[in-house]
Amino acid sequence: MSDRVVLAYSGGLDTSVAIPFLAEKTGAEVIAVAIDVGQGGENMDVIRQRALDCGAVESVVVDAREEFARDFCVPALQANALYMDRYPLVSALSRPLIVKHLAAAAKELGGTQVSHGCTGKGNDQVRFEAGLAALNPDLKVIAPARDYAWTRDKAIAFAEEKGLPIDVTKKSPYSIDQNLWGRAVETGFLEDIWNGPIEDVYDYTADPAVPREPDEVVITFARGVPVALDGRTLSPYEIIAELNRRAGAQGVGRLDMVEDRLVGIKSREVYEAPAAIALITAHMELENVTVERDLARFKRSVDQRWGELVYDGLWFSPLKRALDAFIADAQRHVSGEIRLVLHGGRAVVTGRRSDDSLYDFSLATYDTGDAFDQSLAKGFVQLWALPSKIAAARDVR
Amino acid sequence: MSDRVVLAYSGGLDTSVAIPFLAEKTGAEVIAVAIDVGQGGENMDVIRQRALDCGAVESVVVDAREEFARDFCVPALQANALYMDRYPLVSALSRPLIVKHLAAAAKELGGTQVSHGCTGKGNDQVRFEAGLAALNPDLKVIAPARDYAWTRDKAIAFAEEKGLPIDVTKKSPYSIDQNLWGRAVETGFLEDIWNGPIEDVYDYTADPAVPREPDEVVITFARGVPVALDGRTLSPYEIIAELNRRAGAQGVGRLDMVEDRLVGIKSREVYEAPAAIALITAHMELENVTVERDLARFKRSVDQRWGELVYDGLWFSPLKRALDAFIADAQRHVSGEIRLVLHGGRAVVTGRRSDDSLYDFSLATYDTGDAFDQSLAKGFVQLWALPSKIAAARDVR
Amino acid sequence: MSDRVVLAYSGGLDTSVAIPFLAEKTGAEVIAVAIDVGQGGENMDVIRQRALDCGAVESVVVDAREEFARDFCVPALQANALYMDRYPLVSALSRPLIVKHLAAAAKELGGTQVSHGCTGKGNDQVRFEAGLAALNPDLKVIAPARDYAWTRDKAIAFAEEKGLPIDVTKKSPYSIDQNLWGRAVETGFLEDIWNGPIEDVYDYTADPAVPREPDEVVITFARGVPVALDGRTLSPYEIIAELNRRAGAQGVGRLDMVEDRLVGIKSREVYEAPAAIALITAHMELENVTVERDLARFKRSVDQRWGELVYDGLWFSPLKRALDAFIADAQRHVSGEIRLVLHGGRAVVTGRRSDDSLYDFSLATYDTGDAFDQSLAKGFVQLWALPSKIAAARDVR
Amino acid sequence: MSDRVVLAYSGGLDTSVAIPFLAEKTGAEVIAVAIDVGQGGENMDVIRQRALDCGAVESVVVDAREEFARDFCVPALQANALYMDRYPLVSALSRPLIVKHLAAAAKELGGTQVSHGCTGKGNDQVRFEAGLAALNPDLKVIAPARDYAWTRDKAIAFAEEKGLPIDVTKKSPYSIDQNLWGRAVETGFLEDIWNGPIEDVYDYTADPAVPREPDEVVITFARGVPVALDGRTLSPYEIIAELNRRAGAQGVGRLDMVEDRLVGIKSREVYEAPAAIALITAHMELENVTVERDLARFKRSVDQRWGELVYDGLWFSPLKRALDAFIADAQRHVSGEIRLVLHGGRAVVTGRRSDDSLYDFSLATYDTGDAFDQSLAKGFVQLWALPSKIAAARDVR
Repeated sequence: MSDRVVLAYSGGLDTSVAIPFLAEKTGAEVIAVAIDVGQGGENMDVIRQRALDCGAVESVVVDAREEFARDFCVPALQANALYMDRYPLVSALSRPLIVKHLAAAAKELGGTQVSHGCTGKGNDQVRFEAGLAALNPDLKVIAPARDYAWTRDKAIAFAEEKGLPIDVTKKSPYSIDQNLWGRAVETGFLEDIWNGPIEDVYDYTADPAVPREPDEVVITFARGVPVALDGRTLSPYEIIAELNRRAGAQGVGRLDMVEDRLVGIKSREVYEAPAAIALITAHMELENVTVERDLARFKRSVDQRWGELVYDGLWFSPLKRALDAFIADAQRHVSGEIRLVLHGGRAVVTGRRSDDSLYDFSLATYDTGDAFDQSLAKGFVQLWALPSKIAAARDVR
Repeated sequence: MSDRVVLAYSGGLDTSVAIPFLAEKTGAEVIAVAIDVGQGGENMDVIRQRALDCGAVESVVVDAREEFARDFCVPALQANALYMDRYPLVSALSRPLIVKHLAAAAKELGGTQVSHGCTGKGNDQVRFEAGLAALNPDLKVIAPARDYAWTRDKAIAFAEEKGLPIDVTKKSPYSIDQNLWGRAVETGFLEDIWNGPIEDVYDYTADPAVPREPDEVVITFARGVPVALDGRTLSPYEIIAELNRRAGAQGVGRLDMVEDRLVGIKSREVYEAPAAIALITAHMELENVTVERDLARFKRSVDQRWGELVYDGLWFSPLKRALDAFIADAQRHVSGEIRLVLHGGRAVVTGRRSDDSLYDFSLATYDTGDAFDQSLAKGFVQLWALPSKIAAARDVR
Repeated sequence: MSDRVVLAYSGGLDTSVAIPFLAEKTGAEVIAVAIDVGQGGENMDVIRQRALDCGAVESVVVDAREEFARDFCVPALQANALYMDRYPLVSALSRPLIVKHLAAAAKELGGTQVSHGCTGKGNDQVRFEAGLAALNPDLKVIAPARDYAWTRDKAIAFAEEKGLPIDVTKKSPYSIDQNLWGRAVETGFLEDIWNGPIEDVYDYTADPAVPREPDEVVITFARGVPVALDGRTLSPYEIIAELNRRAGAQGVGRLDMVEDRLVGIKSREVYEAPAAIALITAHMELENVTVERDLARFKRSVDQRWGELVYDGLWFSPLKRALDAFIADAQRHVSGEIRLVLHGGRAVVTGRRSDDSLYDFSLATYDTGDAFDQSLAKGFVQLWALPSKIAAARDVR
Repeated sequence: MSDRVVLAYSGGLDTSVAIPFLAEKTGAEVIAVAIDVGQGGENMDVIRQRALDCGAVESVVVDAREEFARDFCVPALQANALYMDRYPLVSALSRPLIVKHLAAAAKELGGTQVSHGCTGKGNDQVRFEAGLAALNPDLKVIAPARDYAWTRDKAIAFAEEKGLPIDVTKKSPYSIDQNLWGRAVETGFLEDIWNGPIEDVYDYTADPAVPREPDEVVITFARGVPVALDGRTLSPYEIIAELNRRAGAQGVGRLDMVEDRLVGIKSREVYEAPAAIALITAHMELENVTVERDLARFKRSVDQRWGELVYDGLWFSPLKRALDAFIADAQRHVSGEIRLVLHGGRAVVTGRRSDDSLYDFSLATYDTGDAFDQSLAKGFVQLWALPSKIAAARDVR
């Protein structure tokens, strides 16, 4: 059997051209693997056929939307994963899923090499290659854009030369990656970080400044997993998809930031993540209600590290797994309902209820029914302050 | 000279009644100290006179607004201090300032005891007493509400019995604390955490849902300190006051959360902090532009700990001071301008520029002028992934 | 049925006298519960009978040595638990076990109150009461030494007055707590922290300065649990007991430190923990061999927090449980053998081998067989240093 | 002027051969820079002349021993820097100092390139190149051993071919790096991690197992800096040098461990660091006496990160500087005396005294003079335990 290279295939110009390019460059057969992670756009069958038309010997499409929601978005939600306190890890979540399917396809179809379209200055190359190294360290990786300085212009010329069935005329001014959890946009004019984004940049969200009626939604969680919207039991995928529509229609989830890439540079990024932001907002408040204080405080450092690790491409690392064990334990009581109002670009919690609540009306109230024994406070306060007091007395000496 | 007790005086019913109560209970003379931390409301001279009318032997008022902004709000801003990722420490910041002035008044006017109006189930008793223990460990503390179970009803009866010049008829349904940095509201109906807040609860902010024109503001920072708005050089106090008006008019800064109190219970809190939220949003993004990645990552844990410490009443602790040293060093390049749009309850960064920027267009761009050497990436990626790869190979064994 | 109070009974003067004292003070029947956590000393049957002779209506003794080793010492070992990097949590580990048995006895025998002999300035009161609050929040706690200022002199007078069958003549000059995991000593002359300990203070360890032959031991771990010594499969209890003898005979495990107590003061403590120190030394090195770098780095912060929590009496807290989940996951490959030399007060690792090793000779060697691709290093180094480099270039500007 | 390359010169075979090799390879003039960081061995003048004899156009030697002690070892001491809780960063401390002098020499003598002898699988290449990138990003780096796969055998052949004045016959079986702060040894037979070190490996330390009389030393610190031994005021360099002799003579400071290198592999290392271990032991205990609890707890995480950063080659990074600011603040009261006994491979604290002590006899004692108010404890304990108690009650529901 010939040598075979498994290509992470998107259906777009770059990876379509990569098919004959890889065949030529390596002498290997090319297997295209396209994964549906909720990115929308073209029909997956059309994409499958295009790969064959470009010369792939096999073309596989995988509907991984439910898997992506359940095994990648929900863990990110449980970790309240916001890189730099802002970015919900949109691309960083889909890459390990894609890697998993690439490695599986290589195993099943006899691939010994894997190819991706990432450049050498982004994070995604790391996510692909670190993931592959963890899942199958024997696979070799080829990244034409990085390793052969393969540019768009070269790709177009190559496509025309080979007569590939690709439309090379329409070029978005934006570099975009999108999936169920959100959408990332980079572009030339945003590389000037004093420029604000224009409405044209956005696709998942309506303009939050346009007046409209608010939308109210009740999200039910069971042990940290969203299980229902407004009382209707749904899968995680269905919940995220519906919230993308409803929160997106209210302009929720737009982000614009300067971000620290793993490769050591800062870049300007614009994101839209309506469902992600709505769900994380709700989940954080349900944790406020159901998670004990010391656990909540420590979990913030775990959540931060989790987000950094996943951003940095280490989804399949031993530390990620151990952090997951911590988080899973911390979710055991994160069950209940959060009422959110979606409006004007904001997702605002207005109510929370839970059978696992640690909020105790009788301890919290200042009205009749107060069960808190205030006589305990004096001793507590004095011993709480004692170390500072002793240190202050020393400073005076 | 008689024994003297220094009372943290607000001008309200509880602390007014406390004047004759303390005199009776302790046999000491009462000195009232009222601090203007930007809480608004009555004229400070009226408050000063009321204390005398209630029997205080001395009545001191201090305009501490600039001091509060400079020495308490700005450090909180530099720490991006958001307790539980939400609450900008409104009351937790004013307490140490008040404590400082109480201790100074005690020293100057011969006080040996200090009194505050806090209950035994809140955080503020800790902030008062831990602060006093650090500033003058010899001062004794009396907290009538806590130590003598002094309730509002008792206070009203006592006021009427003594014929105190206080209007006891108007009672807000809300328990409120407010200052320059924000406003905190607790109330009976919000103690049911499924209830949403009503518009009547708010005072610093207009309803964000009402359509209105956006406001755009450029905030200039110098080494982490806000120094100008729209090019006009202003003091921190002036900047915060103006942003409270402008961001408040756009409904920015409303918060509604369940919060972990230091005394071990969870409580429901509603806050308004228009300037605080606008400034922290701007400051965080300027840090994204000017602070190196590893420093930024570690600073998140420092910021979190700073917020917890200050929330927990340990403003005057040795750890707080050492965290301040870290933060001060981290601010040395946090200079530049942030453009914010204030609208519909949101403060959104749309531009940033800085002579201290670490964002390097020539490294970040995908267009002409790219200076990033992509050939370095392959080696980086492979060694970055090596520990996970070795671990994965072991797992397979 | 009468009210019943369950007393944590040691057999010593203080808790023996507490039996009639509690009966008199509370009118309740007293149930004595004595737990064998490997403290040695008197026969447990003698202790059981003494409680009855002092007036207990029931006297229970529990041999909890295997349970203590398995469920309390082994988790501490897996967390490399050394409070302040030194103290292996001797007393802090036995308290939650004792609490568990007290709560069980209360449930079984109808107790509604629990009593312990701790003072109000130590850590153990917290460990008892925080534990009881978590296991059965309805139990009331009486601490005669703290709540009734019950001193040794009062206890002796009371014992003589009541004619209790206790020898009140022999008084150790030391305050001692000991169990399988170690021994803690406090004493008057050590309260001057410039004084060094004298040989008389020690019991578990021989003088390390005396010349003797070294002892060599191979400890086998399976997933972080010690399972064999020198190839002999043993229970955790047997391993700890044997290492106490062997490492103790070589003077291993003496500690002398100033320590931060939870109640806010610093105290001088002398400890002996031969097995604990030998095992932690071995376990840490086996982790060095088998745990991936990022996981190992983060685990240090988890380990530190675990030790603080347990020291601070929060064994039964939600955070402790979530940290345990992290640690359990991190132990999944901590299997293999460590060779230790015990000699002259030191436990020194001289060899390690493991089927789960991440040490890869072919990557590490500088000799023939080197499999490390050095050409990757240049790119790695340059991108690793890039953020510092960009920051340095900015500093120069 | 010709192009010039500045070579980090040790006087040994590899860097001596590098002089003509670099000249040949680059056509540039070679400037040799040798730094005395207390490594002992040959006279620096001999080394200086050898570089000239091998063809260097300039040969600079710098006595940096006091600078190394003051600016590199003392900060490491204040951070209690022990990578992986064991290794006092011997080589990691000298590299940034060497880098500083290389960059200075390049500036002064017109160098545009820098060369070092490190291989591509160690940490030192990173420390050199990250440091150079921070100090002068324009300098190019050449690493013959890594970039030209330059081996010892090649070097010997080249030396003989060129007739270089170097003795190529004596080859240590060990790879060694040593300086004032310690000594690192790697070797073929230690690459089997089951093998124990033999006495022949050691040079800074005598065999701790040999019976001898103990040595007692009193170390005085002022704000975290060691300033005197046994009452004699000395410079940091003198203190470290004397303690290397005295602690080394007692076998203190031997370490044998498996270590995580930055480049992603684990390696076996043997170290000797008698003064470092003695000083860190003393400094940690003085911190126990003089540093407030919360500060001490947080400082552990700062210390850990400091050690990782410096190990990882990021001495000149922004985070390192901010951590230094924290540590400097934390040292403000770390003044006093520690009495250490050096004996049998152990450095044991037996006494501590300090005018800045937070240990308060009257609070700590159980004897006459107890000033601790035990009545405060009950309230403290109950509120301390309240969150766990509420969580436990929830778990029961």
